[in-house]
Amino acid sequence: MALATTETPAAVDFGPASALSCRECGTRYDLGPSFACLECFGPLEIAYEFGRVTREQIAAGPTSVWRYRDLLPVPADVAAKPNLAPGWTKLVKADNLARELGLRSLHIKDDSGNPTHSFKDRVVAIALEAARNFGFHTLSCSSTGNLAGAVTAAAARAGLSACVFIPADLEEAKIVMASVYGGKLVGIEGTYDDVNRFCSELIGDPLGDKWGFVNVNLRPYYAEGSKTLAYEIAEQLGWRLPEQIVIPVASGSQLTKIDKGFRELVKLGLVEDTPVKIFGAQAAGCSPVSTAFKAGHDVVQPVKPNTIAKSLAIGNPADGPYVLDIARRTGGAIEDVDDTEVVDAIRLLARTEGIFGETAGGVTVGVLRKLVAQGALDPDAETVVLNTGDGLKTLDAVAAHARPAAVIRPSLEAFRTAVADA
Amino acid sequence: MALATTETPAAVDFGPASALSCRECGTRYDLGPSFACLECFGPLEIAYEFGRVTREQIAAGPTSVWRYRDLLPVPADVAAKPNLAPGWTKLVKADNLARELGLRSLHIKDDSGNPTHSFKDRVVAIALEAARNFGFHTLSCSSTGNLAGAVTAAAARAGLSACVFIPADLEEAKIVMASVYGGKLVGIEGTYDDVNRFCSELIGDPLGDKWGFVNVNLRPYYAEGSKTLAYEIAEQLGWRLPEQIVIPVASGSQLTKIDKGFRELVKLGLVEDTPVKIFGAQAAGCSPVSTAFKAGHDVVQPVKPNTIAKSLAIGNPADGPYVLDIARRTGGAIEDVDDTEVVDAIRLLARTEGIFGETAGGVTVGVLRKLVAQGALDPDAETVVLNTGDGLKTLDAVAAHARPAAVIRPSLEAFRTAVADA
Repeated sequence: MALATTETPAAVDFGPASALSCRECGTRYDLGPSFACLECFGPLEIAYEFGRVTREQIAAGPTSVWRYRDLLPVPADVAAKPNLAPGWTKLVKADNLARELGLRSLHIKDDSGNPTHSFKDRVVAIALEAARNFGFHTLSCSSTGNLAGAVTAAAARAGLSACVFIPADLEEAKIVMASVYGGKLVGIEGTYDDVNRFCSELIGDPLGDKWGFVNVNLRPYYAEGSKTLAYEIAEQLGWRLPEQIVIPVASGSQLTKIDKGFRELVKLGLVEDTPVKIFGAQAAGCSPVSTAFKAGHDVVQPVKPNTIAKSLAIGNPADGPYVLDIARRTGGAIEDVDDTEVVDAIRLLARTEGIFGETAGGVTVGVLRKLVAQGALDPDAETVVLNTGDGLKTLDAVAAHARPAAVIRPSLEAFRTAVADA
Repeated sequence: MALATTETPAAVDFGPASALSCRECGTRYDLGPSFACLECFGPLEIAYEFGRVTREQIAAGPTSVWRYRDLLPVPADVAAKPNLAPGWTKLVKADNLARELGLRSLHIKDDSGNPTHSFKDRVVAIALEAARNFGFHTLSCSSTGNLAGAVTAAAARAGLSACVFIPADLEEAKIVMASVYGGKLVGIEGTYDDVNRFCSELIGDPLGDKWGFVNVNLRPYYAEGSKTLAYEIAEQLGWRLPEQIVIPVASGSQLTKIDKGFRELVKLGLVEDTPVKIFGAQAAGCSPVSTAFKAGHDVVQPVKPNTIAKSLAIGNPADGPYVLDIARRTGGAIEDVDDTEVVDAIRLLARTEGIFGETAGGVTVGVLRKLVAQGALDPDAETVVLNTGDGLKTLDAVAAHARPAAVIRPSLEAFRTAVADA
């Protein structure tokens, strides 16, 4: 296992990042390819020494995550190196959906607009820079599908090798996408958690030497990419924080980093310090964090996933306890919806806003609807919900409901009979 | 048939557009929902009276096609109405692909980043404004798939009804996408050209009353959306024209409007008047324009399409003769590639640049490669190639080539045996 190391890699440049710091005990380490504290095995996070950052400076940057390069562990010239330049996706004012749900103001942060059509392009872009810094020749990951495609695509653009690992039973679109970019795709017989354990073994083996596993030994860097969701939402709202936000929970990393991003913006004086209630969304078939939240527990009991929302099917979520903390601290909640509600929510989002979300988007929109119905969300507060993936990757979820109204001969008569008069 | 009309619709606002003008005989008509000249049956185009437009004014606009609203037949407040805000997709500097092909400077205009992942969102956005102007309640089209999804999604966001028509044998992803947004999808037994003829009949029938067929009675407006590709390419290159560009040819409308867009930029003084060689790309299984070009003909003989590039499978291309004109006038050419070359080119693009293009993208990249090999393209000239759609919609084209390297148990031993030592 690649725990923290005391070796300093030569000539790394991580911009404003100053150290790795243990989230549990605060022990600090040099910036290296390590992810767990030598003292307490807690997860390592990036610590920063930010310079002065202004709204104007950010607005003058590129329309990608690199407009926030001064807030990320990347060198100042990051945008000039070959990369997929993800981010700056649309924040859609969702008046139709708001009306259906009885909300005053709703926005959808639609990350299906990223290069490989999921939010994973954000985190991979940061991990790629770390891999370059550490001289790794191969980019790797354990993945529920979206990440595998994001990693192999990013490696192709950057000229690195890729070897990625997924549960063998994923959706066809995700399998094709993860292999089309020319990297090596390996299917593992087992769940995502099995794949993850396998990757942790591989890191300690000579086979995995000089490999950057974006979500294992590069995890502290990788995870920071999710902060850009917070930055973009705040900037796109006109430099202010939303009052409520609904975020999907798989490992829980995204939710914790969005919280971190909001707090950084406040600290840097880029937004006013207004309260944000943070809500987490899970599928009922893989809801260990939601279960713990409702039971009032601080620890998360692992589960064996069984849901169509495969991109969220992490039964043993590493950041589960932090998600519980954040939901409780901000006055939010963690809720879950079953697969039928997921499909209904995908269709609702498509029908009202013209956005075709992945099953993960069905989970967040489904949970949004449930929270409104429960009265857990304030219908008058400014609300943001995330769609983190693309419906084209999970076609099977809705295929039975998305059929032609009719198939006819090309004649008015046939049309009249089959459709117009129906 | 809805030819030009002398009735002026009440209170329409098309911004800088001043009239409809016959491309053949120049006869002018009021801005209405018509597409063919009463005098000569020639196609109608939008004529403009542009005001002063500056680079600064454009750069200060939104990161969507609406930054060019002063060059389009739309009202000044268009961005404020509910719409998908397509455009401003990435112009990717494709150094890896350039190296493989022996080109000095190559960019890919990647329209898979649009809301429904094809360039069709651009043209539909303009047609939607026309539909609103004319008081239509239903948005419709004949489509090879991408357009159907773009129309139903745009209608959902805008709160209009949708009823769209496709050949019944399209790719599953396009069928699901065209129905998931809640509009009515009708499969037609026949080719795209049969679908198109059917829609022309429907327009004249009371059944189609108050329907805006984006590519029939709204075609003059719709077609203008493709100009935004030219505007964006020029702006993203730093306000200059490329020396060579490779564009897919289906109906031919996109190519003719990119040419129009470049010429407008010159006329408005926004770019220098430098020559652009315009190349058209077709699939061998539907190459009526390429065939006519090579034979030196001015007219295009319709064909019955048979290619995996279904989004380009228009056997009777309305703008074919104009495409021939433009290729000849600019010193370009029209070329075609067979389905095997299409698949190879999709994989080449994915492997080198991390972009997973649709079969249409395989056609343009395949033709680019062929033109370089033929010496028809100057390898030292600045070249742009279009990817107009998304590989996730045409998975079958590459699925046989995009498989896992292995499926293994989660053990180092199994990995070593199956993959690492292979």
